[in-house]
Amino acid sequence: MHSVQFTAETTSNGVVERDFTVGEIPGVLWSPASGPDRAPLVLLGHGGGTHKKWPAMTGRAHLLATGCGFHVACIDAPGHGGRPRTAHDEQEIAALFRVREAGEPEGPVVVRYNAHLAERAVPEWQATLDALQELPEIGAGGPVGYFGLNMGTAIGVPLAAADPRIAAAVFGLHWPDALAEKARQITVPVAYMLQWDDEHIPRASGLALFDAFASKEKTLHANAGRHKELPRFESHSAAVFFARHLGDPGAPRA
Amino acid sequence: MHSVQFTAETTSNGVVERDFTVGEIPGVLWSPASGPDRAPLVLLGHGGGTHKKWPAMTGRAHLLATGCGFHVACIDAPGHGGRPRTAHDEQEIAALFRVREAGEPEGPVVVRYNAHLAERAVPEWQATLDALQELPEIGAGGPVGYFGLNMGTAIGVPLAAADPRIAAAVFGLHWPDALAEKARQITVPVAYMLQWDDEHIPRASGLALFDAFASKEKTLHANAGRHKELPRFESHSAAVFFARHLGDPGAPRA
Repeated sequence: MHSVQFTAETTSNGVVERDFTVGEIPGVLWSPASGPDRAPLVLLGHGGGTHKKWPAMTGRAHLLATGCGFHVACIDAPGHGGRPRTAHDEQEIAALFRVREAGEPEGPVVVRYNAHLAERAVPEWQATLDALQELPEIGAGGPVGYFGLNMGTAIGVPLAAADPRIAAAVFGLHWPDALAEKARQITVPVAYMLQWDDEHIPRASGLALFDAFASKEKTLHANAGRHKELPRFESHSAAVFFARHLGDPGAPRA
Repeated sequence: MHSVQFTAETTSNGVVERDFTVGEIPGVLWSPASGPDRAPLVLLGHGGGTHKKWPAMTGRAHLLATGCGFHVACIDAPGHGGRPRTAHDEQEIAALFRVREAGEPEGPVVVRYNAHLAERAVPEWQATLDALQELPEIGAGGPVGYFGLNMGTAIGVPLAAADPRIAAAVFGLHWPDALAEKARQITVPVAYMLQWDDEHIPRASGLALFDAFASKEKTLHANAGRHKELPRFESHSAAVFFARHLGDPGAPRA
């Protein structure tokens, strides 16, 4: 297996940001500049067409690192960020642009392409998690959270179904078609976010995916608004959720 | 109009609790033991069969007073707490016990009786609010929140529809039958709580009531579990919601 190779380090607003690679996978690890020797880890899954340092990722990472004292990691998904695209990636991206241009529903393309990406991404996340857990400040056996919406949910749901190290997860904004069966295998606490007036994902589809999780503890946050209008305060909700379930000492408690 | 007559005062855990009457309506006002000269007010509506000092009320009041610096008031609903019951109250309570005994759905009785109580309770809340706003520490014109589930929603929805002083509200756990039309008149921010596995309120009914609110900003929190299993952390969610919308200085911000 590959270990974590750090390639750059900066510090801002109380958060140390370290770029790393695990084999060919580029990632970033955010950590509190000061804190206990060991703290829980939250994995962030970015959305389609973005990358590991997209503003939503750095914003959530800082919130979780400074608000909860957690380590936070994100990796570029296959074909995203600086990573090479395959011919299949190029075809699917072209297909997505075509349906958007034509004003046709993008769901079928997104569902199909994200399911393909998840097959490539899940083993990458598992290799990354293996390597991160070798770091003394994270360690094996500690609780791990996962937080990803949109494509981050398409990858995170099969990851959480496959990997018992994921102890709590925040998902949202996806279709049940390729995910409901995996969701039925997930029993850890889940928070699910959907937009009540989503123009891409029918309301009943979002509710069906939430319904599919087998978790005893699951909570749905549905907000008025369109697909891209998820309120920013839901990042705070996610932090409170992880503080509750990952058991950090210095966190915003519910 | 009647003014607030204080009848008793105690202080515990940083919260001053003052019993009061407004005319014949008995109430309680919780306030931070220390804080600014003036602060927002949140009204608590208790559930059916309980009263103004039910543990859920005092718990929420302490959370809002110490966590957000708010004043918090609750009054006994008609026929509840120490208040006299009419012959109609006795009939409806007997009807409720009968359907419960028989294992029949209690929704029809609860919906009908709560709608009746709301007609009596809304003017009482408005008279109480008039009187509370004459207190210098509350004042007229400041933001007012309302937080009530179950019967507290059956009373709070028509109150918020009728009274423009209600600037934000937390509702939940009720049927749309008698409330959806009033909900369509409400445009202030609303948080709505429902239980995903509610044995009394069909899921589609709860979702229909949330859907009916005309508010641009509305958020649904649906949790796995039965009617009485609303997680206690939702009181914290409500506090964060009120802190966001009532604009208090010392509050848990999202």
